[in-house]
Amino acid sequence: MKTLTSRDNPLYKRLKALAGSTHQQRRSGQALLEGFHLARAYIEAAGQPQTCIVTEGALRHDEAHDIIARVDPQLVVMLPDALFGQLSNVVNGVGLLLLVDRLAPEMPEHVTQTCVVLDGIQDAGNVGSILRSAAAAGVQHVFCGSGTAYAWSSKVLRSGMGAHFLMQIHEDVEASTLIERLDVPVAITDSHGSAAIYDSDLSGPLAWVFGNEGAGVSEAWREAAAHRMTIPQPGGMESLNVAAAAAVCLFEQCRQQRRHRE
Amino acid sequence: MKTLTSRDNPLYKRLKALAGSTHQQRRSGQALLEGFHLARAYIEAAGQPQTCIVTEGALRHDEAHDIIARVDPQLVVMLPDALFGQLSNVVNGVGLLLLVDRLAPEMPEHVTQTCVVLDGIQDAGNVGSILRSAAAAGVQHVFCGSGTAYAWSSKVLRSGMGAHFLMQIHEDVEASTLIERLDVPVAITDSHGSAAIYDSDLSGPLAWVFGNEGAGVSEAWREAAAHRMTIPQPGGMESLNVAAAAAVCLFEQCRQQRRHRE
Repeated sequence: MKTLTSRDNPLYKRLKALAGSTHQQRRSGQALLEGFHLARAYIEAAGQPQTCIVTEGALRHDEAHDIIARVDPQLVVMLPDALFGQLSNVVNGVGLLLLVDRLAPEMPEHVTQTCVVLDGIQDAGNVGSILRSAAAAGVQHVFCGSGTAYAWSSKVLRSGMGAHFLMQIHEDVEASTLIERLDVPVAITDSHGSAAIYDSDLSGPLAWVFGNEGAGVSEAWREAAAHRMTIPQPGGMESLNVAAAAAVCLFEQCRQQRRHRE
Repeated sequence: MKTLTSRDNPLYKRLKALAGSTHQQRRSGQALLEGFHLARAYIEAAGQPQTCIVTEGALRHDEAHDIIARVDPQLVVMLPDALFGQLSNVVNGVGLLLLVDRLAPEMPEHVTQTCVVLDGIQDAGNVGSILRSAAAAGVQHVFCGSGTAYAWSSKVLRSGMGAHFLMQIHEDVEASTLIERLDVPVAITDSHGSAAIYDSDLSGPLAWVFGNEGAGVSEAWREAAAHRMTIPQPGGMESLNVAAAAAVCLFEQCRQQRRHRE
């Protein structure tokens, strides 16, 4: 284990630049995973990080020792609390960070299973929540279109709670490229949809497209949609939060598939 | 319409103190509603605000004129952009704010319809999303227990998208007080629940309790639960985001009630 004490250390400067800028995270292809849960999820799924950064405080927790025991000692760096604080995006964080290369899977030639398309979802919390719901529903591929919050940003990673390591997440996906590769029908929801999701047959694979918080699903995906459905809302609201709507859709599909198998 | 140009104006100082502090918002019983959508929803539901604050920029939008036309002119205050900016919590906001008293409904003697209990939900975005889902599902009462993000804070109001004005939201509710008044069974979900939500009869009224993001539902509510259910998750994740889980539960109940009526 190395100890790093200077603010001028090149690694520290690089970490600080990364921590402070989603743009920098996207450009570098590197991500910072903060906390025990994300670190463990990464190591289980992908193996060694580039660097594991810990504080003395973290070492008071058994969970930190369990994680460090699984990392090559040469990759572990100890930081004083004051330096670590400037890398952390979490209030009262535990003092453990992994620096990793983001997983960048190849685009599949054909998509034959249920997948999720994020079509301009701006809010990082919404993107993280949808990734988590998709992973819980057993989805294998998520495609992020332009205007969608960067999936490997610290905020999306935090709210994704490890979903990133259970699925293949594709960034900067063009609608036209993906539409050509889809062997499953496209499903969208909006308040003008013709059928209720409950009355639609969702037992087969679908490409669920979830759109921008304000503008909804973009024109290209609207045109590609085979199913345009609605979530019946007995109350007076116009619409659900996009991550809530996504959860309702994905789990209605799970319910139907479950019943189908019985 | 008055115009206010000094940072030392008592109203401006009060607004600034409110805008900067959720604690201050909670203590004062006043709330700031930013943007056209929230302002319109408030006026439709509750009538006149205490004050309507606008910038010159806002008056370029027809929506601002529509709102101002419905407010007593004596209650409208014009602010220069620079002063307004310090009150705004929104990047690229539209320059319109209402100062209102929060709606503080009386606790019902008996709860006989489906309601939602927020049991220590810390994240403002989650609270707002659940309020929105509850309003969309036709829920009338939401009870916020200790440790739950303040429902009338700017952040929860923003993510609630007007749900606040379609339901009665009760703050600082003690579990023991509420449990005595519930004439409907308590339902919780966790990963050890005995039955899948799909296999449980949700067609009658329920008190849905959604718990803290980390710790889940508290002991008092666990003990009060008549239904302890699980959302089957075919993928590898341990759990859903609490707002996603709440949406799945509330809309599974809507689905069953809809089928029941057919």
